[in-house]
Amino acid sequence: MALKVGTRGRIASFIVMDVLRAANERQAAGAEVLHLEIGQPGTPAPAAVRAAAKRAIDEEPIGYTDAFGLPALRGRIARHYAERYGVEVDPARVAVTPGSSGGFLLAFLAAFDPGDRVALAAPGYPAYRNILTALDLEPVLLGTGPAERYQPTPELLERAQRERPLAGVIVASPSNPTGTMLGAAEMAALSGWCRDAGVRLISDEIYHGIGYGSRPVCALEQDAEAIVVNSFSKYYSMTGWRLGWLVLPEALVRPVECLGQNLFISAHAVSQHAGIVAFDCTDELDGYVAGYARNRALLLDRLPAAGLDRLAPADGAFYLYADVGHLTNDSQAFCRRLLDETGIAIAPGVDFDPERGHRTVRLSFAGPERDMALAAERLADWLKRAG
Amino acid sequence: MALKVGTRGRIASFIVMDVLRAANERQAAGAEVLHLEIGQPGTPAPAAVRAAAKRAIDEEPIGYTDAFGLPALRGRIARHYAERYGVEVDPARVAVTPGSSGGFLLAFLAAFDPGDRVALAAPGYPAYRNILTALDLEPVLLGTGPAERYQPTPELLERAQRERPLAGVIVASPSNPTGTMLGAAEMAALSGWCRDAGVRLISDEIYHGIGYGSRPVCALEQDAEAIVVNSFSKYYSMTGWRLGWLVLPEALVRPVECLGQNLFISAHAVSQHAGIVAFDCTDELDGYVAGYARNRALLLDRLPAAGLDRLAPADGAFYLYADVGHLTNDSQAFCRRLLDETGIAIAPGVDFDPERGHRTVRLSFAGPERDMALAAERLADWLKRAG
Repeated sequence: MALKVGTRGRIASFIVMDVLRAANERQAAGAEVLHLEIGQPGTPAPAAVRAAAKRAIDEEPIGYTDAFGLPALRGRIARHYAERYGVEVDPARVAVTPGSSGGFLLAFLAAFDPGDRVALAAPGYPAYRNILTALDLEPVLLGTGPAERYQPTPELLERAQRERPLAGVIVASPSNPTGTMLGAAEMAALSGWCRDAGVRLISDEIYHGIGYGSRPVCALEQDAEAIVVNSFSKYYSMTGWRLGWLVLPEALVRPVECLGQNLFISAHAVSQHAGIVAFDCTDELDGYVAGYARNRALLLDRLPAAGLDRLAPADGAFYLYADVGHLTNDSQAFCRRLLDETGIAIAPGVDFDPERGHRTVRLSFAGPERDMALAAERLADWLKRAG
Repeated sequence: MALKVGTRGRIASFIVMDVLRAANERQAAGAEVLHLEIGQPGTPAPAAVRAAAKRAIDEEPIGYTDAFGLPALRGRIARHYAERYGVEVDPARVAVTPGSSGGFLLAFLAAFDPGDRVALAAPGYPAYRNILTALDLEPVLLGTGPAERYQPTPELLERAQRERPLAGVIVASPSNPTGTMLGAAEMAALSGWCRDAGVRLISDEIYHGIGYGSRPVCALEQDAEAIVVNSFSKYYSMTGWRLGWLVLPEALVRPVECLGQNLFISAHAVSQHAGIVAFDCTDELDGYVAGYARNRALLLDRLPAAGLDRLAPADGAFYLYADVGHLTNDSQAFCRRLLDETGIAIAPGVDFDPERGHRTVRLSFAGPERDMALAAERLADWLKRAG
C-alpha cells in the first residue's frame, strides 16, 4: 500500500530558494554566478559579532537557552526600541526566534485558528503566503501596484473584509520585493483600521535600517497590540546565523512561549551571544547600507538604458522589482534562460505575486558592487542580443 | 474589541523548559543549581567542531545555504549510514534541519493531514504530542509500562487502529524519558505492522550512540519508507548549535523541501560547517558516553538507597525515569519543592505522560559527575528529612 503524503506539503516552493540551488549547482560545476536572486548581504556579520561568536564558542556553554532567549539579548532588544523609536518595550514581551522565519511560524500559530483569513499585499514575501497555507490559514492577497505604492490600504482591507471577515493583516515596510515604505500616516491608517475591525496587525520590520531617505515607522509607535517581527539577517548582515525576534502583545506571550518551547526549544546559542553586540555595530552596518545605496544608484542608472525602466521605488530594502512584461510572459523561463546564458541569477516575480508575477522579476542588490556592475553590463548585452 | 488568540497556542508548555527557566532564574539570583532537569550534555561540542566553527566564521560566507543544507554535510550524513548501519542512503534524501525539533515539524506537516491520528508511547518526549496538537494532528497515546519496556507494540497499535485508523506511529529508541531500546526483532515487528497497515513510521534516533550495552537499530535497516529523525544535540554534544537531520522516503523529499524553504530557509550555516567534522570525533564523544555511564552507575548505586528504587531500565540515552508514587501524587509540586529546598532541578513526569506522570519524575544524568554525586547526596538527605 502506498503511504499517504500530506496535503500541507503541497505548498508552493520558495522559488528564490530553487533558483539559489540551481545557481549553487552551476557554481559548483565551475561556472561563474552573479547572485542577484537571494535577499542576503554579500558582507559578513560585523567584526565585533564574529569576535563575540568565537569568544562564546570558547567560553560559554553552548546549550539550550530559555525558550525566549538569553535575558541579556532580550533586554538589549528591548533597549533598541527605546533608542531607535522611543517606544517602551518590556523585555518580557521579546521572544528570540530562529530567524524571522521561526517568528512568523510562532506568530501565525499563536494568533490565528485554522481557516482564518489573513490579508497581505501582492507582490509580497512568498513565505508569508506559503507558511499561512501550510498552517491551514487562508492568505488573502491584496493586489497592489504603483497606485498604492505596493502597500495595503484601508480601502483594500475594507473590500477584503466585506467578502469574509479577516483575522489578521501582514504589513512589511520596507517591503520585499518592492522596497516601498509606509509613512507614519499610512501606518496610523492601517493600524487604526485594524483596531476598529478587531483584526490583528503583524508588522514585518526586518528591513528597518536599510533605507534611502525616509525614516521607517515601527508599528509599536501606534499599536501596542501589533505583533512585530524582526531579524538579524538584513541590516545586521547575519542571514546564516538564523536569529530573529518578535515583540508580542501581552496576551500572546505565554502561547508563543509554549509553542516555541515545543517547536524550537530555543534559538542558536552562539548567535544569541553574538547578537547582543550587533546593536553596537551601527558604524560598520551603516557602511554596508552606504554600499547598498551605491549599488542601487548604479542599477537605477544602468538598467533603464538596458531596457528595464519600469521599476518599483525601492525606498528601502535592497531589491528592484522590475516589470518585464515587454520581454516575457513567463518570468520563470526568463530567469532560467538568463541564468543559463549569462550566469546572472535573479528571482521570477511569480514567487512574489502568483497572479501577475509572470511579467515581473526581482533583482537583489545586496551583493558586492562589482557583481552589480558586471550584472548590469551582461544583462544589457543579453537583452540587446535577445531583442 | 479584544483581539483573538488562536487555540493552537493553547498547547501544553514543555514543562522541562519551564523548570529550566525557574532554575536559571534561581541561578541568576546567586543560588546554586544542579541541572538534572534538562536533556543536555554538560560537555561542550568536540574540540574539532569548535575549531571548525571558528574557522567557518573567519573564512566562509555565513549565509543561507540550500534549504536542505550544505551538500558536503548531506553527503557526510549519508556516509554515516553506510558506516554505522550498513545502510545505503542517497544524500538527496537527507534534509538538514534546525535541530530535530525542526525535523519533527517538517515531517509531521509533510506526512499528515489535519485530523490524522499519530500513535506514540506514553511516557514519551512531550514535544511530539505538543507539536502534533499544534498542527491539528491527534496524538494517540499508547500507555506503556515495564511490561512493554515502555515501547509501542503491534498489539497496542492494533488496538488503537481498531478505534480509528492511524496515519502514523512515532518510535524512539533509546526512548526519552525511559532509555529503553528496541531490538532488531521489535523494530521489525513494528515496521512490519506499519507496512501492513499502510501507516507511516517515524523513528526518532537522536539518542543513538548513547547506550550501555545493546546496539541501536536504525529503522532504515528494515523500512525504506520510514522517516528517520536525528540530531547533533545528544551524542554529538551540540544542543545549542540547533542542528539535526531527516532521512526521507522519496515521496516526501520535495514536500519537505518546499516546507523547509518557507518555514526555515535553511539551518544555521556555522553549525553546518562545524557539523561535518562531528562524525570524525568519535573518540572524544565515546569518552563523553563513558562519563554518562559513570553517572548512570553512580545514580543506580545511590538512588535506591535514598528511596528511589523503581527505575526504568535506561539501556540508552541519559535519563532515569523514577516512580515516586510513594512520595507524592503531584510530581510538579514535588519538583518545585525539590528545586526550592535543595537546588536540584529535575523534571516532573506529567511532561512525559499527562495521565500517569503525576507519580513519576525524570532525572537527566548528562551533566558533570560532580553534580550527580552532589545531587544523590542532597536528594537522600532531603527525602530522609521529608520522610
